[in-house]
Amino acid sequence: MLYLVFYDISSDDLRNKVSNFLKQKGLERVQYSVFLGDLNNSRLRDLEVGLRMIGKRKGGEDERFLVMIVPVTENQFRQRIVISWELGKRDEEGEVIW
Amino acid sequence: MLYLVFYDISSDDLRNKVSNFLKQKGLERVQYSVFLGDLNNSRLRDLEVGLRMIGKRKGGEDERFLVMIVPVTENQFRQRIVISWELGKRDEEGEVIW
Repeated sequence: MLYLVFYDISSDDLRNKVSNFLKQKGLERVQYSVFLGDLNNSRLRDLEVGLRMIGKRKGGEDERFLVMIVPVTENQFRQRIVISWELGKRDEEGEVIW
Repeated sequence: MLYLVFYDISSDDLRNKVSNFLKQKGLERVQYSVFLGDLNNSRLRDLEVGLRMIGKRKGGEDERFLVMIVPVTENQFRQRIVISWELGKRDEEGEVIW
């Protein structure tokens, strides 16, 4: 099943940890803080456990750490609307983030 | 149709502008940076135009501004997995964000 993973994480360090973890798990980066992956139940569980480990260390009062995983269809994903300054930006490895 | 709106915005000012705008447009806040709304095509267009206006002013190189709108079904939304520190936090108006 196709899953959309998106995150809003204020700490640069944790944000990098999450994006590296998602890449390691074979998900595709489609936007600066959005990944897409076709996952069976065991890979989904594995993803959730790993993300909970990364998010275990609670941050300060004004720090944000949110990761949401939602099932979507390819058709729904194609209908997405993106409003972003990230167009054409490259990430650490030079991958074009759109 | 049901839409999930999520954002990753590094500027506090712009992030507040977006969340106030989404509340004004009648969407329901389900997470710190995630809203949900049942929108027809004209409300969806209206939302997109307004968000593009807010995001018009480009920020600095390391500033992030991303808003993504994705159609989902209620069933898909119910299957979401959330990993967050935000549990139990209240927003500016004291609304419990979960």
